[in-house]
Amino acid sequence: MACKIQCNFENIKPDVSDAQLQDMQSEISAAHEMLVSKTGKGSEWLGWLDLPLESDRVINEISMLAEQMRKDTDTLVCIGIGGSYLGARAVIDTLQPDNGMKIVYAGNSIDSTALANILDSLNGKKFWVNVISKSGTTLEPALAFRIIRNFMKSNPAIQNPEQYIVATTDQEKGTLKPLADKRGYKTFVIPDNVGGRFSVFTPVGLLPIAASGVDIAELMRGAQDCAGAIQNADIFANDAYRYAATRTALYRQGKRVEILANFNPALHYISEWWKQLFGESEGKEHKGLFPASVDLTTDLHSLGQYIQDGERILLETFLIVERSPRQLTVPVDETNADQLNYLAGKTMDDINHKAYQGTAKAHRAGGVPNMTITLPELSAYTVGQLLFFFQKAVAISGYLLGINPFDQPGVEAYKQNMFDLLGKPKD
Amino acid sequence: MACKIQCNFENIKPDVSDAQLQDMQSEISAAHEMLVSKTGKGSEWLGWLDLPLESDRVINEISMLAEQMRKDTDTLVCIGIGGSYLGARAVIDTLQPDNGMKIVYAGNSIDSTALANILDSLNGKKFWVNVISKSGTTLEPALAFRIIRNFMKSNPAIQNPEQYIVATTDQEKGTLKPLADKRGYKTFVIPDNVGGRFSVFTPVGLLPIAASGVDIAELMRGAQDCAGAIQNADIFANDAYRYAATRTALYRQGKRVEILANFNPALHYISEWWKQLFGESEGKEHKGLFPASVDLTTDLHSLGQYIQDGERILLETFLIVERSPRQLTVPVDETNADQLNYLAGKTMDDINHKAYQGTAKAHRAGGVPNMTITLPELSAYTVGQLLFFFQKAVAISGYLLGINPFDQPGVEAYKQNMFDLLGKPKD
Repeated sequence: MACKIQCNFENIKPDVSDAQLQDMQSEISAAHEMLVSKTGKGSEWLGWLDLPLESDRVINEISMLAEQMRKDTDTLVCIGIGGSYLGARAVIDTLQPDNGMKIVYAGNSIDSTALANILDSLNGKKFWVNVISKSGTTLEPALAFRIIRNFMKSNPAIQNPEQYIVATTDQEKGTLKPLADKRGYKTFVIPDNVGGRFSVFTPVGLLPIAASGVDIAELMRGAQDCAGAIQNADIFANDAYRYAATRTALYRQGKRVEILANFNPALHYISEWWKQLFGESEGKEHKGLFPASVDLTTDLHSLGQYIQDGERILLETFLIVERSPRQLTVPVDETNADQLNYLAGKTMDDINHKAYQGTAKAHRAGGVPNMTITLPELSAYTVGQLLFFFQKAVAISGYLLGINPFDQPGVEAYKQNMFDLLGKPKD
Repeated sequence: MACKIQCNFENIKPDVSDAQLQDMQSEISAAHEMLVSKTGKGSEWLGWLDLPLESDRVINEISMLAEQMRKDTDTLVCIGIGGSYLGARAVIDTLQPDNGMKIVYAGNSIDSTALANILDSLNGKKFWVNVISKSGTTLEPALAFRIIRNFMKSNPAIQNPEQYIVATTDQEKGTLKPLADKRGYKTFVIPDNVGGRFSVFTPVGLLPIAASGVDIAELMRGAQDCAGAIQNADIFANDAYRYAATRTALYRQGKRVEILANFNPALHYISEWWKQLFGESEGKEHKGLFPASVDLTTDLHSLGQYIQDGERILLETFLIVERSPRQLTVPVDETNADQLNYLAGKTMDDINHKAYQGTAKAHRAGGVPNMTITLPELSAYTVGQLLFFFQKAVAISGYLLGINPFDQPGVEAYKQNMFDLLGKPKD
């Protein structure tokens, strides 16, 4: 039950004291009770809490198929949008496995240039396709899937396209399951009680992640160990709850934007996944912190000025990696013309950590309360822990806000307008 | 003096009426006067207003060097951070020239894995380097440049490294100019009166952009034509001023976040450049709209819920491209199993535009006032127009806010802490 991720709340204390947090314990306990007894809003969507979600049989089947894919080809085209691709991309981009295959992400926009470029890159090649959509009717992936199916028919490198297509979809409802059955695609089931943004530990995330060469057993073990470590309702014994309570306390004080700030650009899509998780869970009834993200130190040279001195509506959560996967050391330069010899012999990790410490202190002093989540290293295990940590935190945070953290009623509004404009036939 | 970019303010009118804008005319006229007479705060930094900034001789020299680079190699490593790389990357990523060379961006973080991966990709290859830093002492590019110089020494494909290095820097101050002179690098000058975030039309942006294969004469022509089209102080005859006034009016009404929303993922780095331009210009004295961005329709499936239903602190600026560089049409599917035949024969552009229209209407109805900036197509000419449009708009917007839009005092705070922690020798 070890939790390898560490949280530091020191730079919050001037704004949210331990005593203030203690005062929130009864609220936290009530939220915890709703969650574990499955009596709160949206409790029909709590499947993700029950880890391992998938049976050994399914995990095994995914791993075997991933291995077969890697034997067959060097490219997997993942067709999905939102929760049907961000979890996989977060894990794969972060871990950058180099023994796996290239994952190409399609069906996540309606941009013709992006899709035409993807088709060019696939021309004459053999590739696998994983189309991921619960209903099959989400416009972007459905459109891309139709165009890619059509493209496969004229590709001499692929004799029987249907043998290279896997559909991850509902077990019976929607348009994708009947299509898969008719054409004979392999299928994996998206559980009924897991929403898109909570689906990274289901076949939605696991198949592309396994295909990329990441060890999904380790990812799941991380999630399970994290689940074991954050079961306590006591706010001071459960960092996920403390994170949820702290951000809620700051929101109640008038903060309006939470910035997730990493110091390793490989974590960029962890932030994109986090923005969906928190924004889509909490942004309702005209409430919630707006989730933003920065990749540092890059963005210290763009948004740094605003964070330091702009409107004081910000809180910041740093995401730190203690040991980078690859190390570089600053070489000596005999002339020292660039005046950097005082850094010679230091690793870039050393310097990057000092940049983080200097930034956290400066932003605190400038009026931006901040917390830090530290991963000791980047591995399937630690990333599995991190993703589950955030899933549990947002559930509690959403209940503290008084909304249903598991629905997304607002995403229908633009779709209805769009389908009307497109003249979609009524069902 | 044609301006090809079109603005639409219809979805703002319920919040900011024409009469309200008219009431701001005297403020706008005062800001305009400060700008053109160079009497406002930070007026020593107004070099970017005087287009063309560079003489024909410099433009010619950049074009010739870019051509030589493309003859020599297929890779240019651009070392720069913030304003020393975002402008170039915005133009290059947006236009995706395919007759040029690969641009590799280094020195924009302190992440060892990212730099080690870049070195791997350069192993045994001949490549050019453009190091871009006004002072030469900005940590990230200085560190990357030292490591890459060291790497070039052991690269058998490059006999005389100094012949493949170009420094874009101050004409005399700092550490990079003396280093360049000593080693015999080619150099280009960053003008004294142009700040980093306004430097895309100087050699900072122009050399990498030219090397990538984009026509910089067309880019400059776009900027100049836009400059000609937005000279009027009349708020209703100058869309850049109207944009500035509108966002200021909304800020005064309590909006706190402006989201720049494109529908073409190739524009992603236009948004990153815009976030620096607006955030660093306005985020001071505890004021300013927090600049955020989304790539749509992708992020309708992540941040869409928050935008539709979250805290009503948002305004949105859509960035629309009328004709994509590449067209795809939805094919007919005989079985229509995916129920998309109602779209058969439509282009993806058609569908993407309906998605935009549906989104703008839904967000407006949900309480998010929005504006639209439309480019008829993606070309060096239209992108040049757009970037200049935003530069002029932020100058006026900053003056309306009462701050100095051209400094960035807040970025020193973390640097001082970091250098102390690193034990940097005092000058």
